[in-house]
Amino acid sequence: MSDLIIIGAGPGGYKTALHAAQHGLQVTIFEQQHVGGTCLNVGCIPTKTYVHSASFDEAVERQPQVVEQLRSGVETLLSHPNITLVRERASFVDARTVETPSGQRYTADNIIIATGSSTKYIPVEGVNDPCVVDSTGLLALKERPRRLCIIGAGVIGMEFASVFNRFGSEVTVVEFLKECLPAIDSDIAKRLRKVMEKQGIKFNMQCGVKRIADGTVFFTNKKGQEESVEADVVLMATGRKPNTEGLNLEALGITLERNGAIPVNEHFEMKKIRDEENKKDDAPASSNSLNFTFPNSPHIYAIGDVNGRQMLAHAAEFQGHHVVNHILGLEDHIRFDVMPAAIFTTPEAASVGPCEGQLKEAGTPFECHKAFYRANGKALSMNETEGMVKLCCEPGEGRLLSCHAYGAHAADLVQEATAYITLGATLRQLRETVHIHPTLSEILIEVN
Amino acid sequence: MSDLIIIGAGPGGYKTALHAAQHGLQVTIFEQQHVGGTCLNVGCIPTKTYVHSASFDEAVERQPQVVEQLRSGVETLLSHPNITLVRERASFVDARTVETPSGQRYTADNIIIATGSSTKYIPVEGVNDPCVVDSTGLLALKERPRRLCIIGAGVIGMEFASVFNRFGSEVTVVEFLKECLPAIDSDIAKRLRKVMEKQGIKFNMQCGVKRIADGTVFFTNKKGQEESVEADVVLMATGRKPNTEGLNLEALGITLERNGAIPVNEHFEMKKIRDEENKKDDAPASSNSLNFTFPNSPHIYAIGDVNGRQMLAHAAEFQGHHVVNHILGLEDHIRFDVMPAAIFTTPEAASVGPCEGQLKEAGTPFECHKAFYRANGKALSMNETEGMVKLCCEPGEGRLLSCHAYGAHAADLVQEATAYITLGATLRQLRETVHIHPTLSEILIEVN
Repeated sequence: MSDLIIIGAGPGGYKTALHAAQHGLQVTIFEQQHVGGTCLNVGCIPTKTYVHSASFDEAVERQPQVVEQLRSGVETLLSHPNITLVRERASFVDARTVETPSGQRYTADNIIIATGSSTKYIPVEGVNDPCVVDSTGLLALKERPRRLCIIGAGVIGMEFASVFNRFGSEVTVVEFLKECLPAIDSDIAKRLRKVMEKQGIKFNMQCGVKRIADGTVFFTNKKGQEESVEADVVLMATGRKPNTEGLNLEALGITLERNGAIPVNEHFEMKKIRDEENKKDDAPASSNSLNFTFPNSPHIYAIGDVNGRQMLAHAAEFQGHHVVNHILGLEDHIRFDVMPAAIFTTPEAASVGPCEGQLKEAGTPFECHKAFYRANGKALSMNETEGMVKLCCEPGEGRLLSCHAYGAHAADLVQEATAYITLGATLRQLRETVHIHPTLSEILIEVN
Repeated sequence: MSDLIIIGAGPGGYKTALHAAQHGLQVTIFEQQHVGGTCLNVGCIPTKTYVHSASFDEAVERQPQVVEQLRSGVETLLSHPNITLVRERASFVDARTVETPSGQRYTADNIIIATGSSTKYIPVEGVNDPCVVDSTGLLALKERPRRLCIIGAGVIGMEFASVFNRFGSEVTVVEFLKECLPAIDSDIAKRLRKVMEKQGIKFNMQCGVKRIADGTVFFTNKKGQEESVEADVVLMATGRKPNTEGLNLEALGITLERNGAIPVNEHFEMKKIRDEENKKDDAPASSNSLNFTFPNSPHIYAIGDVNGRQMLAHAAEFQGHHVVNHILGLEDHIRFDVMPAAIFTTPEAASVGPCEGQLKEAGTPFECHKAFYRANGKALSMNETEGMVKLCCEPGEGRLLSCHAYGAHAADLVQEATAYITLGATLRQLRETVHIHPTLSEILIEVN
């Protein structure tokens, strides 16, 4: 019997295991695939290796080295005396017991589900064509596709569009929505898309894919006309769905959310959803109104992509950190409402906090300040003049609410803004903080 | 008669002029050379253009373009209706009046001296040899020196060593002190120097230059033996001295500090130094004990390199900002004790706050946390595994005191840490702030 069972050793699972082990908990962690999860093995890390490689061939060569090195680092970390790594799948028997396919049973006072997510395919004819791959399949290619069609202009679609365009593939993106990157400020998203268009990527926005046949993607354009794109490889980048299959959640009497996510409360404790709430068509997927706590299982938690809250590796990590603190009775001040994110296109983009549209919709009084890279000395010296930063704050240089940026080092600038937002600081305080000259960070204090 | 006279249109002068003009002050600003000062024309900006150029030839080609574009931007800013730019030298007639060589006199209620600094040559035989240049001279070269000898391993020396080594010059550095970059944490400085040594730069530490003759630099090594280095170009990078010549400060009865700087108080108001204080050999150059305020000239200020406090472009800027606020009676909370700085070697280095040695010396209780780039996923994917971050804080994950780093994006990481330090936040608060995965900024929360 351990203190804590963790199902899944991705960035949520393994970091949580470590934090718990360092605080003296006995942890058993289950992983049926490689440790490190999607992020390390077939997600963020290999993708960023592609981003930072000069050619497809270099990327293909470097990818396994980088992944292997980091994976072996995680394995070393998990060799902590308080951690037992079980390389099998775990299914629930009851609220304190899980079972592996080999029939071994494990019990613990606390169980964290951290099983991640997998590619969500759209239901159209031909998605099983051999030319259709998901991000994992694309990263497994040993030959660069001459023509790549990407379905979906979200984070995954945009990153691969940028990378493969740079590698010399002919890239076409087909997207159902009006603008790319719906999670990001629409002004930034549009500017980024325009830059990528100039780089040679073809975008078909407001287009609904109808079918895929023999490497041709058929879709209806915004005027309702049928169009098609021929490609050697078609990347399905239409979102991800929580991994709950095989967990036997039925044993716990849990009803999943409509998007397939495990419902959780603010401490990421699993909760039941009342059937009538779940059936409401207008209820948001992870609405806070659904706070009917599962009465018998406050010791079962779900973190990361599987709870569908914020499908980001770092969200999983911090959620897990908070859960361990919660188990240990330790207080923390992690602000899950201040969740920065970045997209490693060229140039990169990043954002934290609500975008302008969301602030308007919520009726929040705010003012918006902008600055452009082209006026910044470091940007000019780097020959990186494409980019923009937008800061939203309460009126009168007040409390900083959000930061949206695209351009070189955008992720670093947004990370800096995240500090101010997390600490409740004002735009005035940001502007009165000395910024090193010449750096891109000066753009934050150069806002109009 | 204007509200404010500013002497010098470098980063201190021109940004201050703008801030004052935007607040309704009538400003007259004097500049006998190009607007933008050393920083924009022959300092930070051209140097960073060299840093971000692939070859010497590209650097030489891009330099004037980048400088010209930024300079014309400054000229546009200075065309503000409240600003008059006088392209002449200004000398004091009395505490409210300056005069140009053409005999024109100008008066104002407030005068800011922002005349910057220039290269300080060490007094050895041969410094006037044609092969000896300062940073300005080096940036004017149209041909890459095959062999470059750099005297001084401070910021300027180290940046040029890094750049010219990358361009293919054979670079030798001769430094009097034991370690490079005395302003930076010695652990970081040593590691950076070792990396640069591996890159092929030859360092001669604890060596005193004796004379320069026909392109040969003669020096005494740490064992007291004479050695020499042959070079095509010798860069004098032995520090900078405040520019006060021609200001006719005698008219104000001012005694300069021993290092030639204009003495100022905490609001950068010029002050007299009592002769006996000035003569004390052990009195530090900008000691706070010398607070005998010049009684008749609280309206004369000195900002930037000319006051010798913190010889950094951004220090000048923020000092000027504070002075205008002081003139206008506006309060601000600029923390001049939290002054970050960066060095754009490859890899870059940066720091904010006291280094370990200084904390020990001051008897401040602190704990030190470290993390290395090689364990960070983004660093690996970028193939930028060389680097380290050191955070010092009050015991028990307490108030953050300083951050020292070298490696890719070190300036951005230090800038982020500067936010926490400025706002008085703790290491715990930094660690509980969500950091984007995968980014180098995670190194800050990965510290041991």
